[in-house]
Amino acid sequence: MATYKRVVLASRPQGHVVPQNFRLEEVPVPALKEGELLVRNHYLSLDPYMRMRMEDVKSYAAPQAIGDTMVGGTVGEVVESKNPKFAAGDKVRGMFGWSEMGVSQGGGLVRLDTTDVPLSAYLGAVGMPGMTAWYGLTQINQPKEGETVVVSAASGAVGSVVGQLAKLRGCRAVGIAGGKEKCDYVVNELGFDACVDYKAGNLKENLAQATPDGIDGLFENVGGEIFDACLARMNPFGRVALCGMIAGYDGDPMPVYNMRYLLTMRLTLRGFIVSEHMDLWPQGLKELRELVAGGKLKFRESVAQGLEAAPEAFIGMLKGKNFGKQLVKLI
Amino acid sequence: MATYKRVVLASRPQGHVVPQNFRLEEVPVPALKEGELLVRNHYLSLDPYMRMRMEDVKSYAAPQAIGDTMVGGTVGEVVESKNPKFAAGDKVRGMFGWSEMGVSQGGGLVRLDTTDVPLSAYLGAVGMPGMTAWYGLTQINQPKEGETVVVSAASGAVGSVVGQLAKLRGCRAVGIAGGKEKCDYVVNELGFDACVDYKAGNLKENLAQATPDGIDGLFENVGGEIFDACLARMNPFGRVALCGMIAGYDGDPMPVYNMRYLLTMRLTLRGFIVSEHMDLWPQGLKELRELVAGGKLKFRESVAQGLEAAPEAFIGMLKGKNFGKQLVKLI
Repeated sequence: MATYKRVVLASRPQGHVVPQNFRLEEVPVPALKEGELLVRNHYLSLDPYMRMRMEDVKSYAAPQAIGDTMVGGTVGEVVESKNPKFAAGDKVRGMFGWSEMGVSQGGGLVRLDTTDVPLSAYLGAVGMPGMTAWYGLTQINQPKEGETVVVSAASGAVGSVVGQLAKLRGCRAVGIAGGKEKCDYVVNELGFDACVDYKAGNLKENLAQATPDGIDGLFENVGGEIFDACLARMNPFGRVALCGMIAGYDGDPMPVYNMRYLLTMRLTLRGFIVSEHMDLWPQGLKELRELVAGGKLKFRESVAQGLEAAPEAFIGMLKGKNFGKQLVKLI
Repeated sequence: MATYKRVVLASRPQGHVVPQNFRLEEVPVPALKEGELLVRNHYLSLDPYMRMRMEDVKSYAAPQAIGDTMVGGTVGEVVESKNPKFAAGDKVRGMFGWSEMGVSQGGGLVRLDTTDVPLSAYLGAVGMPGMTAWYGLTQINQPKEGETVVVSAASGAVGSVVGQLAKLRGCRAVGIAGGKEKCDYVVNELGFDACVDYKAGNLKENLAQATPDGIDGLFENVGGEIFDACLARMNPFGRVALCGMIAGYDGDPMPVYNMRYLLTMRLTLRGFIVSEHMDLWPQGLKELRELVAGGKLKFRESVAQGLEAAPEAFIGMLKGKNFGKQLVKLI
C-alpha cells in the first residue's frame, strides 16, 4: 500500500519550540472519491505565524489541534484527479500543511503558471509573504515618494519585498537584519538604501544614522527592542504596519517602552492578517508576479531537504537562522 | 501702576513636578496699542498636556521656555478694547496661560455665549477637553450601537464626556477611575454602565466582569498597567484612541507588555492631538453645546482659588487628586 509522510503537532511548546513538539507519521495514500484530487507537494512553506497556532491562546486563528497535521502552505503537482476542474500535471498552491501529499475537492486550490515564475516563488514573493508585504506597505504604510520606510527582518520573505516595493515607489528603504551577511545582501542585492545590523550593538545610533530624516512608514515584523528603537525615530503622522512580533512568539516577555511616541508623534498603528484581505490579492499578486517575472523583485530561499527536516528548519527560522524565505523541499 | 499676576516656568521637572518648578510674578498691566484688547481671565484650565510642555523633549509642541508664562487655556471678560471686533464686557476664550490678564490682537480669541452655558464649561465639556473626547470617540473609536467603549480617567474632563457620548450613541460605556467615590459618580451621575476602580486591586478580573463582550473602542488617557489590562480585552478589529499617557508623564518607565494584542486582534491605534483637527471643532462643539445646554451632558469641576494655588492644583491633578475638570478661579 502506498504511503506518505506528514508531521503532526505532538505537544504544545513550553517556551521555546523543541523537536519533541512534532511527530513524523507515515499514513496510507487514500483512494480518491468522485470530485477529489490528489496532490504531491513539492515545497512546504515555513512561516512565523505557525508558532502562534501552536499555542492554545486567544488569537486570530483557532489553535492547531494536538495530533493534527501542522498547518502550512504548499505548492505541488496534481498526480491524480477525479475533479473536472483539475488535471494530472497541474501545478497548484494549497494549504496541505506539513505533508508530502494532500487530497482536496479543489476548494481554495490555485492553479499556477510556472512559465516565467518558479514554482517555489508562489510560496514567497508571489505568495502569502509577498502579499503580506504588499498589503502592509500599500494599505497601511502608504508611503509617499521621498519618505523613509523601515522594515525589520529585512532579509526575510516579507521584509525583502517591503523594501523593494518601497524603492520602486521612490522611497528611502532601510532594513534591519541580524548580521553583516544579511545586511550586505539587503543593500547590495536587494537595493535598500541602508541596513542596520541589530546584532552589532548600538542599534539606536546606527538606526539614527540610517534614517537621517526620521521614519514615515514602519513595517514591523519583530517587536521588542527593535520596535522600541524604531518608535523613537518616527516622524509626525507616521504609519506603523504591525505584521509580526516574532521576538515574543516563544512567550518571552517583550515590553515596549516607547509607546509615548504613538501619542506625541500622532502615529497610526494597525495590526493585520493578510488572509483577511483576499479582495486585494488579485491586484497585489498581479504586481508581484510581473515584478518577479521581469527580474525587478529579487528573493532568496533557504531550502531544507525532506519533510523530516521541517521541525529543525522551523526552529531555526524562529531564531533567525534562515536567510530569505524558508522552504522545505519535499520531492 | 496697575499690576497682575502670572506664573512662569522656573525650571524643568526632574521626575515629579514640584512647586519650585514654578514662579509667581507680578507684572504691570501694559497700555493698549491700537488693535489690541485687554482680557481679565476668570478661569484658567489645568490640563495634563501641560506636563509634557515642561519637558525639553521631542513632542508635538515646542517645549515651554524657561521664564515664559505657563501655557494654558482661559476664559474671561474683555475689560478694555482698542479692537473693533471686541467690546468691553465680551466673554472670550483664549490661550492667555497661567495669568490673571492677557493682551491680544484678537487672533484666536473666541467670543462666548453664556446665556445657557456657564463660562467655565467652555474650558471643559464645551471646550478643548470636550472636543478631545468628541474627536477621539467619533473619528477613531467610531463605535457602533451595541458595542463596548472603555475610557480611562473616566471621571475627568475628557473621560466623562467620552462615556456620555458613547451612551448617547447606544453603546455600553465602561469607565476606569481611581477610588469608589469617582466610580460611583461615573455610574450614578454620568450614567456609565460600569466603572472599574483601578485602586481596588484585581484590575484584570474587574475589567473582565465589566466588559463581558470584550472592548470594541478604547479611549486611552492613562497608559501603563491600565492600558495593558484593556489591550487584553480588545475584540478583533477594535479601535484605540490614544489621547494621553498620564501615567508616564513624570518620566516613570511605563512598559506595555500586551502589544501582541494589537497584532492578534488586528487593532487600529491612533494617537491624536485635537488642536490639529480644527476643521471638526464647529461640528463637535455644536453637539457638545446643545447637550450641555439641554442638561444631557453632565460635568463636574474641581476649582482651586486664585492663581497662587495653580501649581499645587496642577501637581494634584497629575496624581489624580482632582475630581472632574480642574480649573483655577482667578477672580
